[in-house]
Amino acid sequence: MTTIVKLGGSVVTEKDQPETVDDETLDRVGAAIGEAITRESPTDLVVVHGGGSFGHHHAAAHGVSTTDGTHDTTAIRAIHRAMVTLNDAVLDALAEHGVDGVPVHPLSCALYESGDALSVPTSHVSGMLSEGFVPVLHGDVITHERKGATVVSGDDIVAALARSLSATRVGLCSTVPGVLDDNGDVIPTITAYEDVATTLGASEATDVTGGMARKVQTLLGLDTPASIFGPTDLDAFLAGSNPGTLVHRE
Amino acid sequence: MTTIVKLGGSVVTEKDQPETVDDETLDRVGAAIGEAITRESPTDLVVVHGGGSFGHHHAAAHGVSTTDGTHDTTAIRAIHRAMVTLNDAVLDALAEHGVDGVPVHPLSCALYESGDALSVPTSHVSGMLSEGFVPVLHGDVITHERKGATVVSGDDIVAALARSLSATRVGLCSTVPGVLDDNGDVIPTITAYEDVATTLGASEATDVTGGMARKVQTLLGLDTPASIFGPTDLDAFLAGSNPGTLVHRE
Repeated sequence: MTTIVKLGGSVVTEKDQPETVDDETLDRVGAAIGEAITRESPTDLVVVHGGGSFGHHHAAAHGVSTTDGTHDTTAIRAIHRAMVTLNDAVLDALAEHGVDGVPVHPLSCALYESGDALSVPTSHVSGMLSEGFVPVLHGDVITHERKGATVVSGDDIVAALARSLSATRVGLCSTVPGVLDDNGDVIPTITAYEDVATTLGASEATDVTGGMARKVQTLLGLDTPASIFGPTDLDAFLAGSNPGTLVHRE
Repeated sequence: MTTIVKLGGSVVTEKDQPETVDDETLDRVGAAIGEAITRESPTDLVVVHGGGSFGHHHAAAHGVSTTDGTHDTTAIRAIHRAMVTLNDAVLDALAEHGVDGVPVHPLSCALYESGDALSVPTSHVSGMLSEGFVPVLHGDVITHERKGATVVSGDDIVAALARSLSATRVGLCSTVPGVLDDNGDVIPTITAYEDVATTLGASEATDVTGGMARKVQTLLGLDTPASIFGPTDLDAFLAGSNPGTLVHRE
């Protein structure tokens, strides 16, 4: 029984201010996870967070993206260091609420193979879960064969982990309360991309790496049902319900 | 053609002063590696460094060793953070001399399985080498099944990498010029532990984790020949010769 929770970069940081943590939201999120962990339940939990104003700022400054790579190790180290700083803030917030988080940095384990297949070994993550730890991963810059290094999104890390850990539940805590239809209402269930293609087409154009269209497509590729919800619904998700939008291919 | 170089913790830090880098030696070591890298040779290089006054200080303070584990994530994060700080100093020194080093933290990829088998996935390390990067690993605190987390020595990381990368050369840059006999002279070649058991018996008792006896036993377990030498011989080793003591089982 493994649950993976993704904390969106916009949820845990002030996205408009470079390298600024959203302390208030991060504390609320830490409290929700702390309460879920201390509840008597045998669920293993993996946390993944996005880059928000940490990773994106440095990646943009150095011209590195999910598709454009670099061989400049100064750039790689700067982007990575920013993400490690954010990861440390997330771990601190979790520790405040009694969560035994340990850092797992994708640059130190993951690889985009040529052909863009993402490889994330997870025997150490499984080992951490067995020992009662909460592994905390994140979007990062990682080695990309033939491109040097590119950005891997938190969402793609979630998908890779969901597959190799055979996760039973996946939750994406976003700034919005779910996938919204044209009237701004939350769509309760998505089972095929065609159902929402028109609605999501517009958002795809405006947000290339973390957009809702890409999220939905990624989640439809999983065997595990996945929920997309806002920060106030995190405790409900961790308590076992499916707030927001449930994405699960038929 | 992969070469692995280990920089001893006592070489790159002031071992008597907590969290103090030996800037002068580290710079000299960085220069030697920089010169070797820029020489036209197709050798892939992996660097591993020990903990010196960074890791050992925190590990001792928290009662964590290669055998005594902890489930205290505050301790784990403190030991790990110290090692990441030292790793950053090593990467800076290498960058000063044009070496494209990238960090690889064992906590983020390695695992002691129950039965004490060390698992270090290396597809990302191979990917870094293909892209022209120099992966820089280190001794660390890592997950240990049934023990929480324990210390992994830089030497054991070297041995795991030598095996899975099929390294052609291994060099351990130590504070001493090689393995010394009872007269204090460097033993040129060791092919079996019995030959040096008496001489090394004493050092084993005084230095449990990084002692020369353990180093020699670890290196005799490898298919790859390994040299143990002092800092002034690093350039000679990187140029292709075998300074100090060559350890290679028959």
